[in-house]
Amino acid sequence: MSGHLYGKTFELWRAGCPDVWRDYTHHAFVEGLRDGTLPSAAFLHYLIQDYVFLVHFARAWSLAVVKAETLDEMKVCAGTVDALVNHEMTLHVKTCAAVGIDEATLFTATEEFENLAYTRYVMDSGLQGDFLDLMAALAPCCFGYGEIGQRLAGCAAPDTPYHGWINTYADDDYQTVMAAVGQMIDHAIARRLGDDPVQSVRWPHLQQRFTTATRLEVAFWGMGLRGA
Amino acid sequence: MSGHLYGKTFELWRAGCPDVWRDYTHHAFVEGLRDGTLPSAAFLHYLIQDYVFLVHFARAWSLAVVKAETLDEMKVCAGTVDALVNHEMTLHVKTCAAVGIDEATLFTATEEFENLAYTRYVMDSGLQGDFLDLMAALAPCCFGYGEIGQRLAGCAAPDTPYHGWINTYADDDYQTVMAAVGQMIDHAIARRLGDDPVQSVRWPHLQQRFTTATRLEVAFWGMGLRGA
Amino acid sequence: MSGHLYGKTFELWRAGCPDVWRDYTHHAFVEGLRDGTLPSAAFLHYLIQDYVFLVHFARAWSLAVVKAETLDEMKVCAGTVDALVNHEMTLHVKTCAAVGIDEATLFTATEEFENLAYTRYVMDSGLQGDFLDLMAALAPCCFGYGEIGQRLAGCAAPDTPYHGWINTYADDDYQTVMAAVGQMIDHAIARRLGDDPVQSVRWPHLQQRFTTATRLEVAFWGMGLRGA
Amino acid sequence: MSGHLYGKTFELWRAGCPDVWRDYTHHAFVEGLRDGTLPSAAFLHYLIQDYVFLVHFARAWSLAVVKAETLDEMKVCAGTVDALVNHEMTLHVKTCAAVGIDEATLFTATEEFENLAYTRYVMDSGLQGDFLDLMAALAPCCFGYGEIGQRLAGCAAPDTPYHGWINTYADDDYQTVMAAVGQMIDHAIARRLGDDPVQSVRWPHLQQRFTTATRLEVAFWGMGLRGA
Repeated sequence: MSGHLYGKTFELWRAGCPDVWRDYTHHAFVEGLRDGTLPSAAFLHYLIQDYVFLVHFARAWSLAVVKAETLDEMKVCAGTVDALVNHEMTLHVKTCAAVGIDEATLFTATEEFENLAYTRYVMDSGLQGDFLDLMAALAPCCFGYGEIGQRLAGCAAPDTPYHGWINTYADDDYQTVMAAVGQMIDHAIARRLGDDPVQSVRWPHLQQRFTTATRLEVAFWGMGLRGA
Repeated sequence: MSGHLYGKTFELWRAGCPDVWRDYTHHAFVEGLRDGTLPSAAFLHYLIQDYVFLVHFARAWSLAVVKAETLDEMKVCAGTVDALVNHEMTLHVKTCAAVGIDEATLFTATEEFENLAYTRYVMDSGLQGDFLDLMAALAPCCFGYGEIGQRLAGCAAPDTPYHGWINTYADDDYQTVMAAVGQMIDHAIARRLGDDPVQSVRWPHLQQRFTTATRLEVAFWGMGLRGA
Repeated sequence: MSGHLYGKTFELWRAGCPDVWRDYTHHAFVEGLRDGTLPSAAFLHYLIQDYVFLVHFARAWSLAVVKAETLDEMKVCAGTVDALVNHEMTLHVKTCAAVGIDEATLFTATEEFENLAYTRYVMDSGLQGDFLDLMAALAPCCFGYGEIGQRLAGCAAPDTPYHGWINTYADDDYQTVMAAVGQMIDHAIARRLGDDPVQSVRWPHLQQRFTTATRLEVAFWGMGLRGA
Repeated sequence: MSGHLYGKTFELWRAGCPDVWRDYTHHAFVEGLRDGTLPSAAFLHYLIQDYVFLVHFARAWSLAVVKAETLDEMKVCAGTVDALVNHEMTLHVKTCAAVGIDEATLFTATEEFENLAYTRYVMDSGLQGDFLDLMAALAPCCFGYGEIGQRLAGCAAPDTPYHGWINTYADDDYQTVMAAVGQMIDHAIARRLGDDPVQSVRWPHLQQRFTTATRLEVAFWGMGLRGA
């Protein structure tokens, strides 16, 4: 990726855990989406879990509104809740409806441990820490899916059945929201850590939250591959 | 008011504290809005405080998304955050801009104690209790302003300078959101307290939260009248 | 177990998920503690993770003080935090010190996913719901360890190296605290659900939290057996 | 006061709002305790409200355990909860019992707005921010009462009926806990803001929380003087 697509903070966090970031964004599950070899049962299992994930992710972005300290932080976080509930989750609802699974069933699906671990870790990052702790835990999903969507849009097999998934994250709507989130995080960092955040004593703690959430992304793909 | 405009639960809560409800909805401040005798300095003082109030009210409705347990609860609460941030607060921003107060100044206005007491009591109702505790504390502002707006729209002096305020709460946009909130609260009550909620052992506790929040509305008007 | 050792509510919750409760309290890990066949490396791996678990468990019991609504609830929950920090964790610190692992190392140990999933699920039960939601998620660990400790104290192999662990949970200190917790939960249930809680519409939701936390206990033992 | 009795951070915060600090620690209510002219009805009204205040203060210190990030932070905060519930509140319970008010009545006393505003502002500081935001809001009560207790112990009228109150805060138990709290806050600041915290961009925000909580102390004394 060139330029500061999702902001400077994200690029620093990503550079702080290069191996686990690659494990996440180039996971076998992702490559299966790209070349179309991912079994449809694995995809469906993933999608059902991801629906429940997004329910809790929307709760976590709402917690970010609770913890925001500026009007801009409030507006961007509230806008992200709207994007999750009214756009991203539509992909899941439509895809599952096509195979006979309605939204009420999705909402009450039993969560796999990897799913529980990830979403509740994010929530607790917000309860234990401040707005930045929560942002560091939210960032890997937001920007990683943006990166994956962009990459796969440029190299996916023409006949992969997963273009719908790829387009959800590659398209301008998603990319625009994520660019705004990235810029807002940069401002949030400057407000709380100053102009040289990497030198702040808090930086390693924030990096650890980002890295932990990225590890949890890797485990989430693994859960998807494992199937139901 | 006739019918179940804002739902059955609200009507029960309102009936549970008739005197304080009347003190709130027929406060001298409200009558001053109606007949136009409210001094503009008092209105402006109120409006600045109310802007900060709405910032925290939006945080509280976001906390409601965190505490929601159904998709409908999540969607209605997220929609209310949007209505607050993108509609109701516009009245405040425009009115204050007309007298030379910009939004950044509003956002950082020093809160009066009555304001602090009210908003933080609502937030803590959500932290201490469950979704219903939070709804009981949020309800008086939502539905009281709806009632006041409707009543004043029908009887305000033609030359009161406060038609802009009255219309904000009387108009269909606000009334439609509040009708949806009222219906959602009825469902939330049924989900957690069953078909005969008044007989539930929790009912007096929820009534107490509603009554306390209504008392805090009365104090908020009093703060407005007192002026800066 | 005879009698209402840890209260009526616990017995109802336990009876609501008999298979998973047995999977938890008679897990191969537990039987390995009993007959002494549990490899010491597995025990040590478990103990380090369990130390971090207890850190977050103490945070969760502190959240219970935040959510308490009676003086008795506050006192019992605050007392449990004290018991965890000043008694139960001592076992872990001493055992680990004997093999050269100091408490600072324990405190910063990387959490396994099963550990993250469990503790953060408990925390979020408190953030999303009320005091009862949090109690239902806290109960399986508290009372399950009490049950296991009592059973193993009566049937453990004389030469098992795990008598220290068994005694921590079998001894009167732990049992007395747990009896008080069980009684407090019964009162908390009566206060919020009335005299016939099983008929309450909330009961299935609370049972689900208890069952989920019990499933997470099974996964935690599995993590222990798997080793580092 | 000489030396760093309650730590360096507190001294910086106190020096950041000298006028409001003096309004608080030399309030007419305090001088009435010193010379014995405070009407007993005003004292009793204050004491009942202060009991409810301490209930929520104990909840806030428990929230601090939830937000702690080191073992030392957890232990000091949990110890403060214990000191509040099992020591400081005893003064209130005994004094009120002597005039026929039992603890159950105290626990359910209707809170004055100044009381609501203060305690809920503290709670929300913890929900919105991190451990430091909460500490800045908790500090004025803790250390201010320590200062007042020490000063009045040295200059109170021999026949003031308020020696019991004065001794509660002047005695070694209270002072020792507060010295530990002050030291813990200094470490918490160093961990999150580094060696020169006053230069941190967050410093003015933390100062504002301390100042706001001190203003709320002044209002609390005013409520006491006003009487029931």
